[in-house]
Amino acid sequence: MAEKKPGLIMVFTGDGKGKTTAAVGQAVRALGHGFKVYMIHFMKGRDYGEFLATAKMPNLTVVRAGRDCFVNRDKPDPIDVELARDGFKKAEEALLEGNYDMVVLDEINVAVDYGLITVDELLDLLKKKPAEVTVILTGRGAPQELVKAADMVSEILAIKHHYEEGADCCQGIEY
Amino acid sequence: MAEKKPGLIMVFTGDGKGKTTAAVGQAVRALGHGFKVYMIHFMKGRDYGEFLATAKMPNLTVVRAGRDCFVNRDKPDPIDVELARDGFKKAEEALLEGNYDMVVLDEINVAVDYGLITVDELLDLLKKKPAEVTVILTGRGAPQELVKAADMVSEILAIKHHYEEGADCCQGIEY
Repeated sequence: MAEKKPGLIMVFTGDGKGKTTAAVGQAVRALGHGFKVYMIHFMKGRDYGEFLATAKMPNLTVVRAGRDCFVNRDKPDPIDVELARDGFKKAEEALLEGNYDMVVLDEINVAVDYGLITVDELLDLLKKKPAEVTVILTGRGAPQELVKAADMVSEILAIKHHYEEGADCCQGIEY
Repeated sequence: MAEKKPGLIMVFTGDGKGKTTAAVGQAVRALGHGFKVYMIHFMKGRDYGEFLATAKMPNLTVVRAGRDCFVNRDKPDPIDVELARDGFKKAEEALLEGNYDMVVLDEINVAVDYGLITVDELLDLLKKKPAEVTVILTGRGAPQELVKAADMVSEILAIKHHYEEGADCCQGIEY
């Protein structure tokens, strides 16, 4: 079992590249010290490389709570709502059951922005967090209430992005 | 073998948390699609969790080019200079030998800032990069010449950091 320290609430937000990968890297770092990690990817069902690479890692549970398609922000498909709601319930169980040292809620900020989960629900969940568990939340547009509740917030700025220069969306890089 | 796409030069810089972990996450993403990855950690010799967790991953070579101690910026110890120089040579070999799809130069920006490696050496290395290889460079204070040469630059801002609020530096979180 990992050395016990107070858990943190860590947020990776902003328009730049590196939010999900930073969370994945944090998870790998934690695993290296024997932590147990639960990682749930909201709004995503695609075979991201991190999902493929981590699916069978010991001490890591990885769950997807989305589909491999675009979610309509103005009028989300009921399936997308259901997947996010179900994912949130799973995340809550994972957080409260005490078997994990770290819980990663990937793209949860976007799920909140899309109205699939409310800010209040998210804040309530964080209030119920066991003291020693670290929670990592990613996605652009982190709500101010979350920034206030967090111990650490990194905003990732896109100083330069290859999308703008016409490069293709690359396997192994973007997903 | 991974699908072949033009390789990118990607930089994670800034004072915020998440640069190394973003690079580690990118490496894991790439590994998930069958890429071969070489990752070298400059200025670091400590047992970071990502080092422990990734040391035996298939398709991944991980090398440390530093010691587990503070490097004196004004007058680096000859051992630190030698470790960085030797690491740079290894990185060059890994990049040029064509066995890797991705090469991560972790904290290389700091090694450049400390004068252990010159900006010109780094730019020369990037010019020699095989077209299909992606190189990821991390560390605060990326030189402007590197920003110019890069395809993607993310600057990570510390909006809020638990260091400032007196939390301990935590195993599994900070290292």
